[in-house]
Amino acid sequence: MPADAKGGSLEADVVVVGAGLAGLVAARQLEGAGMSVAVLEARDRVGGRLLNEPIGDGKVVEVGGQWVGPTQTRMLALAKTVGVETFPTFGDGENLIEIGGELRRYRGTIPPVGRTALLDLAQAQRRIDRLARRVPPEAPWEARGADRLDAVTFWSWMRRNVYTRAGRKLIRLAVEAVWAAEPEDLSLLHVLFYTRSGGGFDRLLDTEGGAQQDRFVGGSQIVAERVAAALTGTPALGAAVRRISHGGDSVRIEADGGVTVSARRVIVAIPPTLCGRIAYDPPLPGRRDQLTQRMPNGAVVKCMAVYDEPFWRAAGLSGQATSERGPVKLTFDNSPPDGRPGVLLGFLEGRHARRLGAADAGERRRAVVECFARYFGPRAAEPERYIERSWAEEEWSRGCYGGYFGPGGWTEYGSALREPVGRVHWAGTETAIEWMGYMDGAVRSGERAARDVLAAERRA
Amino acid sequence: MPADAKGGSLEADVVVVGAGLAGLVAARQLEGAGMSVAVLEARDRVGGRLLNEPIGDGKVVEVGGQWVGPTQTRMLALAKTVGVETFPTFGDGENLIEIGGELRRYRGTIPPVGRTALLDLAQAQRRIDRLARRVPPEAPWEARGADRLDAVTFWSWMRRNVYTRAGRKLIRLAVEAVWAAEPEDLSLLHVLFYTRSGGGFDRLLDTEGGAQQDRFVGGSQIVAERVAAALTGTPALGAAVRRISHGGDSVRIEADGGVTVSARRVIVAIPPTLCGRIAYDPPLPGRRDQLTQRMPNGAVVKCMAVYDEPFWRAAGLSGQATSERGPVKLTFDNSPPDGRPGVLLGFLEGRHARRLGAADAGERRRAVVECFARYFGPRAAEPERYIERSWAEEEWSRGCYGGYFGPGGWTEYGSALREPVGRVHWAGTETAIEWMGYMDGAVRSGERAARDVLAAERRA
Repeated sequence: MPADAKGGSLEADVVVVGAGLAGLVAARQLEGAGMSVAVLEARDRVGGRLLNEPIGDGKVVEVGGQWVGPTQTRMLALAKTVGVETFPTFGDGENLIEIGGELRRYRGTIPPVGRTALLDLAQAQRRIDRLARRVPPEAPWEARGADRLDAVTFWSWMRRNVYTRAGRKLIRLAVEAVWAAEPEDLSLLHVLFYTRSGGGFDRLLDTEGGAQQDRFVGGSQIVAERVAAALTGTPALGAAVRRISHGGDSVRIEADGGVTVSARRVIVAIPPTLCGRIAYDPPLPGRRDQLTQRMPNGAVVKCMAVYDEPFWRAAGLSGQATSERGPVKLTFDNSPPDGRPGVLLGFLEGRHARRLGAADAGERRRAVVECFARYFGPRAAEPERYIERSWAEEEWSRGCYGGYFGPGGWTEYGSALREPVGRVHWAGTETAIEWMGYMDGAVRSGERAARDVLAAERRA
Repeated sequence: MPADAKGGSLEADVVVVGAGLAGLVAARQLEGAGMSVAVLEARDRVGGRLLNEPIGDGKVVEVGGQWVGPTQTRMLALAKTVGVETFPTFGDGENLIEIGGELRRYRGTIPPVGRTALLDLAQAQRRIDRLARRVPPEAPWEARGADRLDAVTFWSWMRRNVYTRAGRKLIRLAVEAVWAAEPEDLSLLHVLFYTRSGGGFDRLLDTEGGAQQDRFVGGSQIVAERVAAALTGTPALGAAVRRISHGGDSVRIEADGGVTVSARRVIVAIPPTLCGRIAYDPPLPGRRDQLTQRMPNGAVVKCMAVYDEPFWRAAGLSGQATSERGPVKLTFDNSPPDGRPGVLLGFLEGRHARRLGAADAGERRRAVVECFARYFGPRAAEPERYIERSWAEEEWSRGCYGGYFGPGGWTEYGSALREPVGRVHWAGTETAIEWMGYMDGAVRSGERAARDVLAAERRA
């Protein structure tokens, strides 16, 4: 395939729609098994929800997904294979928490929010973990009591099972950080599935030992870029797929730029909500289509301020702050490995992303930088550069971190999430059993979809 | 416009996307104000979710929306204008209810389910109506306590506010009948808004005095057909709209069949979930796009069995049955005005439509006809003809009766439901303030969108 789609009719054994991690890994696996693969990508770049932003001197920050944790073994293995190393998320010094109108410093993972709130948090988390263990991640709808777990929002669960105001605020903060959505949006069953899928509530939230432990040298997007570069079939860029004809014993894909590809099978490796936007001939079965209506993406604006140096470190601060007030409720020191320049990272998530995401860019920047200054002092008010990315605005993602189910989703539609429709297969982190929603889930989903295609072809 | 799109570039003052009632009414109003209008319709017919099915002798049944109630004044006025009359839904004789494994006959609107259950139902309904009155239908997110009302599923509300098993079963039945969804799927705030929008819970459910009171002679679709026939700009059929370019001081619409139309404004009169499937240039704002990810359509299979005569009438039965067992949980006598042939109508709704909708057609027919026979005796087991329509399978509806919000939808995204995006306006029953989800709401939404366009053009 040409690097840029210039039209023309092509043939391949398999077409992959989407050159995010899931699609690229699927293509890599299939090529490894001797198949020819055509990868079609709507954007003018590969990587999907992974995106590096250069900040000078050959250094980058990531405006998309960036972290990897120790149990995310498939992503770690992939990075190793393509020669991308990791380095630890900066965490030396004291963290900050803003609660009850007060900014407090603390060390380690236990914030100074009072003994009662901490006990409350601990018991809530234990309950979530215990409930999560009864959810089979490959089939959450088969959990004991799945109907009831899927009949309520996570907010309803919190109302009954978290007893203190501070506890509720901190759990809300955790929900926003993990799902870029609110407790009101999520089915309890989805929270439990996701917790199970990531190996525990702590694992989702933690830096050391958890999903935020490490970063990639050179930025996460280079993992995708290197996987893409190693493919025989270079992804076609600017080739948004508009139609998939799949009635007979082959598939035919039509994409922007006049590209058409004939193949035996197709792997659609994009978020479920975007799967519904392609025209299928014959149309998708009602249940599969209605699934795509019920798995919205979260909303997040990832914001970074660049300073000549990470000045907060000299003040004994780690750069990690959490705030119940916000709108930036979570920050990190996101400086490059050598600590130059200094980069503060702040997230607008869930309702804050929805509200400020629709605001004027100047207003949003002011609100974000004001938070940085409140947490880290007046020097934070004068960044050299401000970088942001609102993922709901991105035509080819339409939200981050990923898709989630509200009440009723898993039990009524979950079994359609991975089930192929004839020769049309589904990949993407939303289809993962382990680490759904993360890069690791994307990699696993690509590997699984490739296996499914190979198995189906062997049967044929 | 040609009746069938054969390509070519056209110009109009306004383009309307979708020749359902909303779009047709908008076009009618705009033409009435002296504008030229091009209506583009994806299907090979007009009417959208209204669809007549001939059953011989010039008679029809409707496989889509069919009823009209006395307070649905805009739909009644429209029908009158185009010369379509109404006749009462058949209701003479005794109704049936199947509950606790027993089939019972009764007269009127109060089923024989025991005094306790009836009292329970009455108090629950009073509470719903009282809560609904605090919801301003034009801005449900501004209701007192909107955040909390939108944080829970209607199921959660039922668990606390409906006390008897029979009461819960009957309320579930009502929810399935009104929304083609389950109590687990719906935000409490959505149920309250919808109840308010229709003028009370009883109004939604009732035949006499309610939304199911009357039918249209000749079938509801002829209202749409006559409105379409009276337009100067005949709707272009087979013209699925794929792209709306709207950046400058005009819009340009590209549709299947090589049709392109330039205009000053566009009214998109299709369900919100389908609005997200069109490509927009520039892309829609994130908040509007994410709304389209959060308003799924219900699931219903409308099923009818045709007999030489409505034999149940002779047995003193009205043809109206409700059952907690199902899968057909609601039936009507849907015979033509003269009572020949006899037609039994049964609905598969919500989870029953999702499950049986994915089943083999023969299996589904057997399950439906078996219900008819259980309710109306062995003669019902041998219909002359069986007719069904599964609306989730329909590429250009993807569900019925309409879109709904789960928790978090109204409060976080509701204000984007009607708000134009520059020159792109939104219509369709989902955008209605009164009788949202009904034909009447569709008519009102078309009138409102036309007013908005005219006002915007006057300002320009």
